[in-house]
Amino acid sequence: MSKVFVIAQGGGPTAVINQTVAGAAIAARQRHPGAKVLGARHGVRGIRDGNFIDLSDLSERDLRRIGDTPNAALGSTRDKPDEKYCARILEQLRTASADAFIYIGGNDTAGTLQILSAGGDGKMAFIHAPKTIDNDLVENDHTPGFISAALFIANAFLSMDLDFRALPGIYVGIVMGRHAGFLTASAAAWQRDASDGPHLVYVPERPFSIDRLLDDVRDVRQKYGRCVVAMSEGVTTADGRPLVESLIGGGLERDAHGNVQLSTGDLGLAVQASLSKTFPGVRARVDTFGYLPRAFAGTISDVDRREAFEVGAFAVAASENGSCSVAVQNEHGNTTLKLVPLEAVAGKTRLMPPDFLDPTENRISEVGMAYLSRLLPPPPDIFSPFV
Amino acid sequence: MSKVFVIAQGGGPTAVINQTVAGAAIAARQRHPGAKVLGARHGVRGIRDGNFIDLSDLSERDLRRIGDTPNAALGSTRDKPDEKYCARILEQLRTASADAFIYIGGNDTAGTLQILSAGGDGKMAFIHAPKTIDNDLVENDHTPGFISAALFIANAFLSMDLDFRALPGIYVGIVMGRHAGFLTASAAAWQRDASDGPHLVYVPERPFSIDRLLDDVRDVRQKYGRCVVAMSEGVTTADGRPLVESLIGGGLERDAHGNVQLSTGDLGLAVQASLSKTFPGVRARVDTFGYLPRAFAGTISDVDRREAFEVGAFAVAASENGSCSVAVQNEHGNTTLKLVPLEAVAGKTRLMPPDFLDPTENRISEVGMAYLSRLLPPPPDIFSPFV
Repeated sequence: MSKVFVIAQGGGPTAVINQTVAGAAIAARQRHPGAKVLGARHGVRGIRDGNFIDLSDLSERDLRRIGDTPNAALGSTRDKPDEKYCARILEQLRTASADAFIYIGGNDTAGTLQILSAGGDGKMAFIHAPKTIDNDLVENDHTPGFISAALFIANAFLSMDLDFRALPGIYVGIVMGRHAGFLTASAAAWQRDASDGPHLVYVPERPFSIDRLLDDVRDVRQKYGRCVVAMSEGVTTADGRPLVESLIGGGLERDAHGNVQLSTGDLGLAVQASLSKTFPGVRARVDTFGYLPRAFAGTISDVDRREAFEVGAFAVAASENGSCSVAVQNEHGNTTLKLVPLEAVAGKTRLMPPDFLDPTENRISEVGMAYLSRLLPPPPDIFSPFV
Repeated sequence: MSKVFVIAQGGGPTAVINQTVAGAAIAARQRHPGAKVLGARHGVRGIRDGNFIDLSDLSERDLRRIGDTPNAALGSTRDKPDEKYCARILEQLRTASADAFIYIGGNDTAGTLQILSAGGDGKMAFIHAPKTIDNDLVENDHTPGFISAALFIANAFLSMDLDFRALPGIYVGIVMGRHAGFLTASAAAWQRDASDGPHLVYVPERPFSIDRLLDDVRDVRQKYGRCVVAMSEGVTTADGRPLVESLIGGGLERDAHGNVQLSTGDLGLAVQASLSKTFPGVRARVDTFGYLPRAFAGTISDVDRREAFEVGAFAVAASENGSCSVAVQNEHGNTTLKLVPLEAVAGKTRLMPPDFLDPTENRISEVGMAYLSRLLPPPPDIFSPFV
């Protein structure tokens, strides 16, 4: 009997998550002629509801076109299935005679697969294919989707630094990232020396103080006549509370899990108010980037595209040996794909290593810069010698 | 005696404003061997203060590298010179023995040149080279800087529409534009049919009502299961007040001219609150794009680059016949450069023609779509057939 693969996408879309679908579908058909490849609409929700798309007869060309399209072409979901939901998923996967379920997502996705694997009969393989712009999966050097999002951020801060050379002032760009600062750090990827922005980088991994920010901004302005700041939406004060909560207090929107909604603009307005009060008459601007970076069609990295595709193909090969998580690792500067147990990744958050930050200043260290320049393409040729 | 050209940049930077500097400097040297080309640091402020950069000896390669760099390489200014300030500028231009002053900017810039021209002795030429992402100069079909900013917006809404196909809900992107809606309209440039976002477009040219928005959103959600909205920061209610003022009331920041500060995030939060109240439990997200679109290094249009360069070269040729404004016009689908009097452009604002909007729905009309597709590159190949 021919093999049956089920593929689904979970969590926030990325610029290259469809490459992983394409890579898996193409590899499944190549390795297992006659294989049936089912896409689940809107992640596990589609499996629960028996809402499948048959990808088996799509041409390779169409699969590659889907791969080149940003965002989740099968649809995604924020559902975090409990035991009962998982039991229903298992039932539907059995009804579909699935040999393997490849679920593309972050650490929550790996967690769902861990529950499914524990509840299964051992015959079906549950494979986690990594994806997240937050770059916060343990066991991974970097994750598909991160490089493209980082490329948006690098372009944004390059441009904003040039903007604030032309019309001096203070600029703060607020970047997605509740716990991990990798994406915010990528603001520095194309910095040539200390005079280039972002002059200051604040990430969730280091306790944040608004007074320290204001002091830092004052120092940078004295040196360079302007100040460009990259700040994670998730920066937290020393008491462990999100900055936005410390600045505004109650009345903030919370999501279904009780988390304060970040990147809505509240934090931006609060920071703007602090800057205007401390630096009256100085041009000060805070932009909250929001969703723009995560799957922007104009800044998709070729490396990211290729790696995301390979992760999909590798997931199919991996499924022949039981459940696991695909990990994107680095060996001597080369990206290699490995298999790790689901429990090694599930529910865990990888933070930015402490040595990515300068020990005393709020800047990216040489170690952090080397990491970014290994992943991102080189900067465009910028020549602006006068201001 | 060899000719002396002074070049300056005014107002908000764009992705291609340096192309105009490069085009002017290269043309000045080609047409007038031995010509002296002075760049003024930070616009008219640099002239007032005698703060010049000698561009005469830069290699053509370096000038072209400056051209390819986004934002204003000479520095810019928000100064709007009064009579006294203008007298000082004239004095400094005479001291520099300037034959022509080429000032790159919007309608305020043309206004400054008009004052200077009236105060001059008729021997010096004052040339306005157009530039604005707002695309709001009369006599122009479009303005250098607009196409690149529009390309960012088109990419952003393409990506956000795919995002909200994957995870349905309501998305609002707030785009720069106090009076003219061209840039917001460019959100629709890559729309293939009515089911593609942005499903709704609100511009300053048409009175805005929050109740109408909420009704429109309800209708669109019923049809397509999601709703993507492009909104100008400058939308105004029927009483002529900016929407943000109507929604929030007092306490808003105002700039030196008494205008409410737009795109700070206030409007976004107010719209978000209205959506959350009207559509409880529905994923709703408002992003304020802020400064990101105006000179983003990752989405610079080749057509825009070339036209901005040609505008600079044309300004030099024009200076041989006295003061004027360079206008980018359209003849039978081809872009041509013309000369118009400074007073035709100075201080005037071109709004989006009424027929760019559907007469009853808040959408871009076929006429508007034809305009956008004439200027912007074709969309990337998007294939997302399942959601």
